[in-house]
Amino acid sequence: MATVAILGASGYSGQETLDRVLRHPDLDVAALGSDSLAGETAAALDLRLNGSLPRFVRNEDALAAGADLVFLCLDNERAAAIEPPADTIVVDLSGAHRLADPELARVWYAVAPGAWSYGLPELYAPEGNLIANPGCYATAALLALAPLAEAIDPGTVVVDAKSGVSGAGRELKASSHAGFVLENLSPYAVGAHRHAPEIAQQLGFAVCFVPHLLPVRRGLLATCYVHTNEDARALLEDAYAGSDVVRVLSEGTTPELARVQGTDAAEIGVFQDGSTGTTIVVCALDNLGKGAAGQAVQNANLALGLDETAGLRLAGVLV
Amino acid sequence: MATVAILGASGYSGQETLDRVLRHPDLDVAALGSDSLAGETAAALDLRLNGSLPRFVRNEDALAAGADLVFLCLDNERAAAIEPPADTIVVDLSGAHRLADPELARVWYAVAPGAWSYGLPELYAPEGNLIANPGCYATAALLALAPLAEAIDPGTVVVDAKSGVSGAGRELKASSHAGFVLENLSPYAVGAHRHAPEIAQQLGFAVCFVPHLLPVRRGLLATCYVHTNEDARALLEDAYAGSDVVRVLSEGTTPELARVQGTDAAEIGVFQDGSTGTTIVVCALDNLGKGAAGQAVQNANLALGLDETAGLRLAGVLV
Amino acid sequence: MATVAILGASGYSGQETLDRVLRHPDLDVAALGSDSLAGETAAALDLRLNGSLPRFVRNEDALAAGADLVFLCLDNERAAAIEPPADTIVVDLSGAHRLADPELARVWYAVAPGAWSYGLPELYAPEGNLIANPGCYATAALLALAPLAEAIDPGTVVVDAKSGVSGAGRELKASSHAGFVLENLSPYAVGAHRHAPEIAQQLGFAVCFVPHLLPVRRGLLATCYVHTNEDARALLEDAYAGSDVVRVLSEGTTPELARVQGTDAAEIGVFQDGSTGTTIVVCALDNLGKGAAGQAVQNANLALGLDETAGLRLAGVLV
Amino acid sequence: MATVAILGASGYSGQETLDRVLRHPDLDVAALGSDSLAGETAAALDLRLNGSLPRFVRNEDALAAGADLVFLCLDNERAAAIEPPADTIVVDLSGAHRLADPELARVWYAVAPGAWSYGLPELYAPEGNLIANPGCYATAALLALAPLAEAIDPGTVVVDAKSGVSGAGRELKASSHAGFVLENLSPYAVGAHRHAPEIAQQLGFAVCFVPHLLPVRRGLLATCYVHTNEDARALLEDAYAGSDVVRVLSEGTTPELARVQGTDAAEIGVFQDGSTGTTIVVCALDNLGKGAAGQAVQNANLALGLDETAGLRLAGVLV
Repeated sequence: MATVAILGASGYSGQETLDRVLRHPDLDVAALGSDSLAGETAAALDLRLNGSLPRFVRNEDALAAGADLVFLCLDNERAAAIEPPADTIVVDLSGAHRLADPELARVWYAVAPGAWSYGLPELYAPEGNLIANPGCYATAALLALAPLAEAIDPGTVVVDAKSGVSGAGRELKASSHAGFVLENLSPYAVGAHRHAPEIAQQLGFAVCFVPHLLPVRRGLLATCYVHTNEDARALLEDAYAGSDVVRVLSEGTTPELARVQGTDAAEIGVFQDGSTGTTIVVCALDNLGKGAAGQAVQNANLALGLDETAGLRLAGVLV
Repeated sequence: MATVAILGASGYSGQETLDRVLRHPDLDVAALGSDSLAGETAAALDLRLNGSLPRFVRNEDALAAGADLVFLCLDNERAAAIEPPADTIVVDLSGAHRLADPELARVWYAVAPGAWSYGLPELYAPEGNLIANPGCYATAALLALAPLAEAIDPGTVVVDAKSGVSGAGRELKASSHAGFVLENLSPYAVGAHRHAPEIAQQLGFAVCFVPHLLPVRRGLLATCYVHTNEDARALLEDAYAGSDVVRVLSEGTTPELARVQGTDAAEIGVFQDGSTGTTIVVCALDNLGKGAAGQAVQNANLALGLDETAGLRLAGVLV
Repeated sequence: MATVAILGASGYSGQETLDRVLRHPDLDVAALGSDSLAGETAAALDLRLNGSLPRFVRNEDALAAGADLVFLCLDNERAAAIEPPADTIVVDLSGAHRLADPELARVWYAVAPGAWSYGLPELYAPEGNLIANPGCYATAALLALAPLAEAIDPGTVVVDAKSGVSGAGRELKASSHAGFVLENLSPYAVGAHRHAPEIAQQLGFAVCFVPHLLPVRRGLLATCYVHTNEDARALLEDAYAGSDVVRVLSEGTTPELARVQGTDAAEIGVFQDGSTGTTIVVCALDNLGKGAAGQAVQNANLALGLDETAGLRLAGVLV
Repeated sequence: MATVAILGASGYSGQETLDRVLRHPDLDVAALGSDSLAGETAAALDLRLNGSLPRFVRNEDALAAGADLVFLCLDNERAAAIEPPADTIVVDLSGAHRLADPELARVWYAVAPGAWSYGLPELYAPEGNLIANPGCYATAALLALAPLAEAIDPGTVVVDAKSGVSGAGRELKASSHAGFVLENLSPYAVGAHRHAPEIAQQLGFAVCFVPHLLPVRRGLLATCYVHTNEDARALLEDAYAGSDVVRVLSEGTTPELARVQGTDAAEIGVFQDGSTGTTIVVCALDNLGKGAAGQAVQNANLALGLDETAGLRLAGVLV
């Protein structure tokens, strides 16, 4: 059994990571860090957390607990300030360590990049002990586009993405107030979202990325538009053949948020627009699952040499 | 006072058209047609319809009532079968008379085009007595794109649109069941939606159009991606200067569904993606307002020589 | 024309009150108070507010502007601190002046009651210049129960109420976060809500009142359970005969949130449970309409001697 | 391993039952019945059903497949018409066999009661091979009230219940259309719902039961009002001590839909209204989990002598 510390366990991604760890046959919780809940029992976070879990400690104490594996479920600034312990696998769910280019890292996250590898297992295997977990939007865009990267015209790629409100975290802000979110839809950060340089870094070219806030609790769908002369479906089916996490849907079947909510799986649909020759690749995933906690545990499994999907939620509730 | 007959008054667009007619200072209801509610009082449709309204009659009787103005709020097939009375202004809210090309009209609607003019007042003034009211998606896409049509590269235009469930009408179908719609999002009719040829007909070139079903009751938002060397904002502000219906938002302000729900107004936002040089034009409107009933009444006002916005809902509920 | 100042114009109830004032033929905006938006144009609040409106000023300046009529759309504490100007009609939409009993006023609002009258026009006509506008839950419960008060067994009255999230205001709090509200339902403040003593004060006896938070933006429905030997329907129809605001639905017709959303109307349904002899009275209204701004303007109209429903929204959007 | 046939596998409760069976260590799918999907692969129902599942057969063929255990996930009429095979455990999720009184069974379901036992494991252990699975509303009301039945005044019990739309099944009807459900709330079948006699049968006295349709996909919350001189909390804690399915929340903690959605667990909160002496017992559960499929599998486990909670979903998704 490997021991685990979760820093920032009381946020959305922290809770979801804890859920996967509790389901995991080979992981044991060593410490739950939360500066706001330090001293309280785990039931303060969630009634379903049984009495045997350790009490919350401060994040610095969780980091110092000597766990084999540390999940950073902190905001960008606090994650950037963490000094990773030696000989420890650290998976950072924040954005702080995703951009390798010093200038981009400075502009978008005000950090200096370190020796972190970008881990999106189906496309970019994590290497070493320090793993930057991808952003939720970037995960969906990359799953849809990376297998096509060499076959598409880079100048005209559009990623129109839509995400549920949990993607913005548990923090209180006007744009997460239910009075704003319900029965509403709006694009945000148009032309200025931090996941855009992350997508560009991995693809090797920029895409036009526009996120929208959906009136749903969780789930993310990216509709990607490309021009290619190759068989996009074949390239994607090839890329994810044998994957238990990413499934390419058969012709005519459409990805749906509801089908991936609460799971760590992703769905990809491929369509052709006859009138303009555009290929449309749609990826649906749960922003807190494959877009955060599920992928973080998947990365940790690879780093620990465990079964890649241990602990993951791969089949959701049916209705 | 002009007299009005509404055929199909019990559907969503019929009800909304009736609402605008009831608010209108110069229109009087002559007949409410509904094959399913024939013989019943208007209160059978809506408790707010007061007792003084005529009872529902069959659609054929409403058509024969001799009204000055007839709104067709029928499905495509039944609208196509209507024989317009002489000397009557007819506004067809269905798709049956939108496509002028005989082959396209046959393929998409199984009809032969007649002498109908396409009326989208800010862009295409209705002419004559027979007016085809645009589709909701087409209205949003055209408001965003038509003023730019000569300035953009036609090969790479993407229209990613999202609509509330009322866009699919009151008919019972699996994709309008709340168990499917709630907490969900999915694209549909990808590469095969009837509003695509309508948009192409008006712009003069095809665009890649993908609609998505939102978990909201009403409202539609189209995010349009174009490449242009001209100042898109200036072209759009110019096109809608002085309009009481369409407003181009100031720089940095984002269109929102909630702000146009229940109104006949449309909002347009213009953004620039620096990394790819893409211009993003976002249009929000209510699919039942500017996307249907509001525009129908606007067209009727022009045909009757009345104030263009009489009867329209131009300011919505604030929250 | 009477002149109006709105204090707290940027909150939900302030915005909605402004909307009714803008629609009102006999009211003119003199000052819009908002400490947070002072100095900004009205468009900072809402794009639909046209350029001719005055800029926001600080609330104290709005109060000192010498308007004939002042709406207090402030929180309880700030409303309690207001010194009403002489010869001015003041309608307080907060709870600060609703409870007349000094001990209750102290316990629930930490205020001393002044010479304020409780104005719920269909039941309790406002008197004098200082009018306490009822709470949204209290309005629904009282509309359902007050006409029956002398005919029911006071010991067993239950008011099970459900409200949309805007009832909790625009303030940022965990229970208004969309991640909590969406796809959720929970009772809150069980046995401890401030509207309970308000209901008791007006009825003359306590009821068991339990509110629940609904995943909707606006609207409130109260299901009230009573035992009576009299004809509840007749009593209610009698009480609201001739009202343009409150309508008692015919037998078998059920109140619905959707039908009153965005309006200042209320709907009442009356039902009988044969197996237990319980009478069920259901009242639906919009918490921001009849439950706040609509009623405030109704009260102001009465105090000014104007048409009671001037400026009100009495027919909503149809779908 | 026991073999299982599910009749009506393509409805909501059928799908959810299948989900629990697939998770179950001791159950094996022998036949999936669906008259509408007969001949198709299981993937026609749900993409997540892998290729190894049997094809759908007609319901009569599924019944004749000789399985050890049969789940009836049919509508009331079709369930009533089923002839249970000898030596087979049959769990009926419909209402057809819930009412034991011949007159009530005739009035509410047009059936004659047979030798079926009512199985709600925490309160009424199933007996014999034929088990009637309780209704979702009845389950919530009984979990809240049965332990108090002898301690409460039967004349004044109120059950105000709220359920998501999946409780009404997958059938297409106007009241399940998303255009009706979204941003809406309404009571229905007031004083006339089939779960009322079911609750009365088990408690021994009638209660006033009013259901409401919530704008959520799944989940049910019943707020129950009683008068008692005994310690309701103690009675409830006693009744569910040691249960892994039903948890009585600690004082001040409120049941929430979101916390039980997608699970087979139930939450109970107990509150006191000081002003009227009313005790409020709130029960939250998932209408498709503890309210249907979860309870059906729990009943089957008891009948087969298996671990009562095998296959159940007792911890849900965290956010």
